[in-house]
Amino acid sequence: MTRSRAFGFLLARGRGRLFLFRSLDLLPFQGLFYTHGQLVAQSSKHYSGFSRELDPWKCCFTPSYLGVIKGQKASVMVNFSVPHHRPFSSASTSTKRNPYFSTVSLDDVRHFVDILGHKSVIQDEDRLLAANIDWMRKFKGSSQLLLLPKNTEEVSKILQYCNTRCLAVVPQGGNTGLVGGSVPVYDEVIINLSSMDKNISFDKVNGILICEAGCILENLNSFLANEGYIMPLDLGAKGSCQIGGNVSTNAGGLHFIRYGSLHGNILGLEVILADGTILDMLTTLRKDNTGYDLKHIFIGSEGTLGIITKVAVLTPCKPSSTNVAFLACNDYLSCQKLLAEAKRDLGEAISAFEFMDCSSVEMALTHIEGVRNPLPTSLYNFYVLVETAGTDESYDRTKLEALLVRSMEMGLISDGVIAQDLNQASSFWQIREGVSEATGKAGAVYKYDLSLPVEMLYGVVEEIRMRLGNAAKVLGFGHLGDGNLHLNILSANYDSKILAQIEPFVYEWTAQHRGSISAEHGLGLMKAEKIHYSKSAKNVNLMVSIKKLMDPKGILNPYKVLPQSLLQN
Amino acid sequence: MTRSRAFGFLLARGRGRLFLFRSLDLLPFQGLFYTHGQLVAQSSKHYSGFSRELDPWKCCFTPSYLGVIKGQKASVMVNFSVPHHRPFSSASTSTKRNPYFSTVSLDDVRHFVDILGHKSVIQDEDRLLAANIDWMRKFKGSSQLLLLPKNTEEVSKILQYCNTRCLAVVPQGGNTGLVGGSVPVYDEVIINLSSMDKNISFDKVNGILICEAGCILENLNSFLANEGYIMPLDLGAKGSCQIGGNVSTNAGGLHFIRYGSLHGNILGLEVILADGTILDMLTTLRKDNTGYDLKHIFIGSEGTLGIITKVAVLTPCKPSSTNVAFLACNDYLSCQKLLAEAKRDLGEAISAFEFMDCSSVEMALTHIEGVRNPLPTSLYNFYVLVETAGTDESYDRTKLEALLVRSMEMGLISDGVIAQDLNQASSFWQIREGVSEATGKAGAVYKYDLSLPVEMLYGVVEEIRMRLGNAAKVLGFGHLGDGNLHLNILSANYDSKILAQIEPFVYEWTAQHRGSISAEHGLGLMKAEKIHYSKSAKNVNLMVSIKKLMDPKGILNPYKVLPQSLLQN
Repeated sequence: MTRSRAFGFLLARGRGRLFLFRSLDLLPFQGLFYTHGQLVAQSSKHYSGFSRELDPWKCCFTPSYLGVIKGQKASVMVNFSVPHHRPFSSASTSTKRNPYFSTVSLDDVRHFVDILGHKSVIQDEDRLLAANIDWMRKFKGSSQLLLLPKNTEEVSKILQYCNTRCLAVVPQGGNTGLVGGSVPVYDEVIINLSSMDKNISFDKVNGILICEAGCILENLNSFLANEGYIMPLDLGAKGSCQIGGNVSTNAGGLHFIRYGSLHGNILGLEVILADGTILDMLTTLRKDNTGYDLKHIFIGSEGTLGIITKVAVLTPCKPSSTNVAFLACNDYLSCQKLLAEAKRDLGEAISAFEFMDCSSVEMALTHIEGVRNPLPTSLYNFYVLVETAGTDESYDRTKLEALLVRSMEMGLISDGVIAQDLNQASSFWQIREGVSEATGKAGAVYKYDLSLPVEMLYGVVEEIRMRLGNAAKVLGFGHLGDGNLHLNILSANYDSKILAQIEPFVYEWTAQHRGSISAEHGLGLMKAEKIHYSKSAKNVNLMVSIKKLMDPKGILNPYKVLPQSLLQN
Repeated sequence: MTRSRAFGFLLARGRGRLFLFRSLDLLPFQGLFYTHGQLVAQSSKHYSGFSRELDPWKCCFTPSYLGVIKGQKASVMVNFSVPHHRPFSSASTSTKRNPYFSTVSLDDVRHFVDILGHKSVIQDEDRLLAANIDWMRKFKGSSQLLLLPKNTEEVSKILQYCNTRCLAVVPQGGNTGLVGGSVPVYDEVIINLSSMDKNISFDKVNGILICEAGCILENLNSFLANEGYIMPLDLGAKGSCQIGGNVSTNAGGLHFIRYGSLHGNILGLEVILADGTILDMLTTLRKDNTGYDLKHIFIGSEGTLGIITKVAVLTPCKPSSTNVAFLACNDYLSCQKLLAEAKRDLGEAISAFEFMDCSSVEMALTHIEGVRNPLPTSLYNFYVLVETAGTDESYDRTKLEALLVRSMEMGLISDGVIAQDLNQASSFWQIREGVSEATGKAGAVYKYDLSLPVEMLYGVVEEIRMRLGNAAKVLGFGHLGDGNLHLNILSANYDSKILAQIEPFVYEWTAQHRGSISAEHGLGLMKAEKIHYSKSAKNVNLMVSIKKLMDPKGILNPYKVLPQSLLQN
């Protein structure tokens, strides 16, 4: 096996897919393969075909070893220039290091070696660098210590020691977060859960899986597929993200409309508190009303209240048939009405309801190779992709066809087509998934991930479009079924004048309409100081009280989620 | 309108339904009509036919006014002897009044009159008595003050004052709880939410309802039915229970297998904290990852952390077809396998999966008038009731038939029948619902509501049966799809020797198998001191810390949920 000698990032595109990985000496490759967002990792393929398109990162590289990545240990020799940092629209407020925290000493390192053994205490510069940088390359910490605990007891001992010594820590899973929540800000000790990746048990009658927090989502899904079940969440980052991170960030994803929030699907957790206490809430019961249901405090708290080490999750049965329709609407109101009709007609079978405006579709058609509009005529104002997942192919298809006929009669849709096979279904999804990728090819992009009541969701797109006029191209698309808008604003170059036209307007508009400035990405470091746009001072004060109660020294993932001014008072 | 002059309880049975209501001077009747458990209120009917069956409460009564109850103000003249108290199997540990709490003074009453007006400050003995007693007549407080706030601000002012004055309070909704959580233990001020019963808004596209906490579940369901939606929970107590109480107690109910926990269905809450702070978490967003999701702390905390005043709930589309099958299995393992098959074959259409052992069915057949076994041959060891709710009558039926054929071929079921119409479906349900009612007719009954992993759920029934031999009849039935067992033990008379054979064995057995001693009823006063059977000391300690943080004076629903020894330290 070739060992990597150079460190860096490799980004490769192929057929509408985007890959980003980091090569690190000796670590199993599987845990080091990073993808995100709508982008799906085809990690079982090799990479020879992907060197041709490296913009917009403008790096060059020479892979000297192309191994099969998935499920095997492998490494890769990569030489390339460091890519330019991309400017982002929501930079974090500069935060000072909390002087209360200790710095890691040689004695500390020796103590961690005693707990974990030499191999799990990492001080190698290359490996530390990878763990210090988020996958968007927006945030970079300066941690000098990466710990790889192998079990619950080791995590407990680490935290017990760190709490006593006042050493700040950052819990890390697949490091696929978008808001800088999973990398250090300063010199926090990184506790990476990748080595805790065992499936503990699976109850075939009830579909209840218990596993360690470091299990990769895609691996869990592959395991469950053999048992006739699926995970209740599906993300673009599934090839790298870990279930512990999914739960810590309350990940949403593509099946949210069908299976709902993790608050409804997670049955139990094992969590290590700041002082090392092992909190066993790892029940597999569907009903348990004995006292406060504490696990919910940890779901979505982004590692600031405890480190999740084990997860019990209720998994749905695997649907045996999938159908996809691609529909055109003349106005946004029709999209809304179509959503109501689809929910009514398709009932529980609906598994996705995505929408794109004309500009979004045009962007995908223009910039993504192989993407074609399945509707024959010129562009409509809006497009909707409806997916059903059920247990009977022909019945499900008939229902979807009936929805189309009815919607056409009601004047809700102007045109529409149902995929004839899996290839066509995949080509419909390419349009939707291609939008995000296409924006990266068109120049500078300002990205926002908002939750808004569905009836006013498109209003912010129209208002921003009016504010910016010809200065930028404004796209609106996203998970309409969940009220989740992806607002993308494109211009030739990054321009502070354009940014000033967008922010804080977009946050204020969202706040005025009782929306959320972070639908599914969390707050992390990037938006910790912006929480007041979506939560009242009373809400935030109670969060701060809970944080202080559960982590009095503030060692768990500091500088994240909550405003520092409130925490350090 | 006739005014009631006498106070008391009226219990009436008719066609497998049980009614319990309290008549109180001048209050709107709708808010005073109590039912519970599997028993459904037919509150739009009058009561003339129900006097014929009054055992086992052995009270007599003479209704002098029979009004239409539902949706109208009405009252009733009732004269009857006080029914005997029934002994219960899980009596509360005797708890001393916390001497730290003040007692209500005349000045306090004047202050509440200033806030609420005379009509909402109740000191009338009869009305106080009704509010002091739980519907099971197991718990009785001695509160001298019942407050009926009409809006959020009034609740806030009440709590602000009570917190300053150190006056303990008990939040009360429909008072249909089974564990003494909704009545005072001593002289706590009762804050009843019945006057806060407005629907605030309904979003037809997304099925999101916002309403006040005092809305009665059945009324919400009736409202939604007209809009093509249903509430995601359904309870026997729906005619009286209020949505605020449902959320506070994390009510489960009959549709749990289909729509899951309230943690997944409640989108937002407005809650008043102990010091009167109005905590606005009343979002209608499906996705919102901005900070800790605080609403979950209040769901299931039984009014000990705050008083819920408004609720935003995601409501499912109303299914247009329902099918019910009644099946016989030879052993418990077959019931489990049938559950797995049903979940796989019926997919998302499954809406109930109930099981009964032979003794349970025999009990219903023997004691409930009109209940018949739809299967022609003699009794089998186990029975399963499967219900589907979907959007296509013939298709849904075909799928259920296919499940039957396949299960028969696999040897999982010995016999089975699908209801041919709604009447037959209702008669199948009568068997299941009749079990609970029948136990009341057979003598003394010890009732337990346990959650257990499905594979060992019936084990406790078999062990108890062995322990008791001929001394008692042991029934096992319940929501198999949710792992929720109703264990009922019947003997001729209440007997401390039998109880000693059951407790603490049943709790210990449940604890050993990582079950829950309260699947859906909560802990309330009855099981506050038993929490350690289902939660570890570390869990309980964290709950206590959170209680002390959020309600430092402990005024909110004292003596409930958590052990007093830990709270008063």
